[in-house]
Amino acid sequence: MVFMRSVSIIGGGLTPFGEHWDKNFKELIAEAGVNAIKDSGVERKDIEAVYGGCMASGRFVGQEHIGALIADQLGLNPIPSTRLEAACASGGVALRTGILAVASGAYDIVAVGGIEKMTEVSTEDAGFALGGAGDQETELFMGASFPALYAMMARAHMEKYGTTEEQLAEVAVKNHKNAVNNPNAQFRREITVDDVMNSGYITSPLKLLDCSPITDGAAAIILASTEKAKEISDTAVEILASTQASDTLALAQRRTLYETDAAKIAGDQAYKKAGITPKDISFAEVHDCFTIAEIMAIESLGFCKKGEGGKFTADGNTQMSGEIPINPSGGLKGKGHPVGATGVAQAIEAYLQLNGKAEKRQVKNPEYGLTHNVGGSGATAVVHIYKKL
Amino acid sequence: MVFMRSVSIIGGGLTPFGEHWDKNFKELIAEAGVNAIKDSGVERKDIEAVYGGCMASGRFVGQEHIGALIADQLGLNPIPSTRLEAACASGGVALRTGILAVASGAYDIVAVGGIEKMTEVSTEDAGFALGGAGDQETELFMGASFPALYAMMARAHMEKYGTTEEQLAEVAVKNHKNAVNNPNAQFRREITVDDVMNSGYITSPLKLLDCSPITDGAAAIILASTEKAKEISDTAVEILASTQASDTLALAQRRTLYETDAAKIAGDQAYKKAGITPKDISFAEVHDCFTIAEIMAIESLGFCKKGEGGKFTADGNTQMSGEIPINPSGGLKGKGHPVGATGVAQAIEAYLQLNGKAEKRQVKNPEYGLTHNVGGSGATAVVHIYKKL
Repeated sequence: MVFMRSVSIIGGGLTPFGEHWDKNFKELIAEAGVNAIKDSGVERKDIEAVYGGCMASGRFVGQEHIGALIADQLGLNPIPSTRLEAACASGGVALRTGILAVASGAYDIVAVGGIEKMTEVSTEDAGFALGGAGDQETELFMGASFPALYAMMARAHMEKYGTTEEQLAEVAVKNHKNAVNNPNAQFRREITVDDVMNSGYITSPLKLLDCSPITDGAAAIILASTEKAKEISDTAVEILASTQASDTLALAQRRTLYETDAAKIAGDQAYKKAGITPKDISFAEVHDCFTIAEIMAIESLGFCKKGEGGKFTADGNTQMSGEIPINPSGGLKGKGHPVGATGVAQAIEAYLQLNGKAEKRQVKNPEYGLTHNVGGSGATAVVHIYKKL
Repeated sequence: MVFMRSVSIIGGGLTPFGEHWDKNFKELIAEAGVNAIKDSGVERKDIEAVYGGCMASGRFVGQEHIGALIADQLGLNPIPSTRLEAACASGGVALRTGILAVASGAYDIVAVGGIEKMTEVSTEDAGFALGGAGDQETELFMGASFPALYAMMARAHMEKYGTTEEQLAEVAVKNHKNAVNNPNAQFRREITVDDVMNSGYITSPLKLLDCSPITDGAAAIILASTEKAKEISDTAVEILASTQASDTLALAQRRTLYETDAAKIAGDQAYKKAGITPKDISFAEVHDCFTIAEIMAIESLGFCKKGEGGKFTADGNTQMSGEIPINPSGGLKGKGHPVGATGVAQAIEAYLQLNGKAEKRQVKNPEYGLTHNVGGSGATAVVHIYKKL
């Protein structure tokens, strides 16, 4: 499992994340794509292929064939352009596929994008579309929506390890605090533990402010072979590891409800490939679709011991000033979660942080960054590790 | 654009194509996957990653996260498993992505699948889902369904080159004739030009029997690095070229209505990469979603001159006994067109033909095979060229 050659990020661009009533699906793609191309310094003619992550455009906007649509919107025809889907990890698998394509020798420079426009349908229809990330036949069709699936994981974690609702709330409080400093974030306002505790149950023990929002947004990055990146970029960030693992689609089939095996496997493989340990990571963007998801993520990725994620968070270790800043961008909770875009946006945050360009949310002298993107209730996990070239 | 290493097919498996009222989405995947693994002679533990093509499962069966679902159904966890989408070329891009992944050095052996279960929804809903292959905003939402888009291309081709409705009918007649000899085909019965001419207009000049059907089905193949394939397989078929090109999503934006530029570009690149010319190809599986599509395909791929596809077909050149047998499997018209599976099924036909295992539809002593898979009205085209190792 050694790539034929190394791959680096040489630019990134985003739309603001939020409710875009004045822009359609295509316009979001164009905006993020143009921003990424400008940032990278390459010209459109230099881009040889496109990989775009999108989860459920068929349900959200009635449109498939997203690869061709992206190339078209950006005037990149006739290069190959392909859509990747792995539910909420669609952006992560698009990134990973772009990396493999460059590593294969087929291309020197490719664009990777992620998009979701989720606000064109009713909340009920959005819930149905998102249910497609799980096993519809045995989950959503039987009443287990995504908040319910994560609520079961939270309940199991609380029973097994004594994790409290207040500890879960601390995740949301921290991520909102970080989002204040992210101009592209959906929620740029601080909240308190009391706010979370009083925000009303969606599915006990998860309350409204334990849940990431419905969001519109797009993100894009430009990848180059590291050899090429050295020639053309001063800001290149090398991708030291790109790993992906799968677990059962249905939560009920898993080994446990309080651990996420796919994330553990992808994380362990990534550390091994990069030749480092969790202690070496300077910051991480993890998939906090619900607060419990961040707790389980930091345990699976080895930033704290199994079962101690709640306490580790409440003790402040994951704050910007803590031992390992988690989600400096604001995470899915504070920044927003346009599902297909999330994995790509995480990589952009790593790119900015490692270049010292994250402004008011800058982590101090970061060396290694990590991103962790999850599909569904954990059936897909994608981990990347980055270092400034 | 030279791959770091060569990749070969070492096995393939299909479900029958047709209306599967007794099998669900998951069961079709399991059946094709198990058939492919058995055929390849590898064990499940040897497979390192999965790439699955599927166009619109969200619309057809309410399910996304198809990569994880495939790995789960086949007991392949925890290996990475990812869905690819490019409308009706989803299978083709899944194949191409699997090839890049092996060429990248990340994996020695991967599985590639394709699936679509189209009969769970009404014909109207299926039409809406398929409209997502075009530019919904300016096409289907304005009344231009897929038969209408291809009807416009047919009309333009007829006006420009004098192509006749009878010549279009000859495509359907030939493909039904070939399908009789394919045990997995949806329509194993011969039809006549008169049958086509009298089958009623769907959108003039296209009649019912000019159109490929709504189909359920799945297909899977196993890929290995050619180095590995030489060690473990006697039936390996090397992939000499894997190319993909994009055109505008909306038909109205194209350079012309009577030529398919993406197919021409992907075809030319493939011939160059394989170091051969159209004359060297022994047979081709092309994307005949409508009869006019096959006419335009054989022109774009250089099997006949521009504008002469209708006459070339009517003269018998694309028959099994002709100069260049086109769609020995029966094509999309005769074999059926479960959109996400089609590109993978085409590759299986090439694999069988080049191994002399195509039974009653065997092409005589084939040397090079070609497959051509199209998304939408031509916004994505994927071409592969194969040779027995």
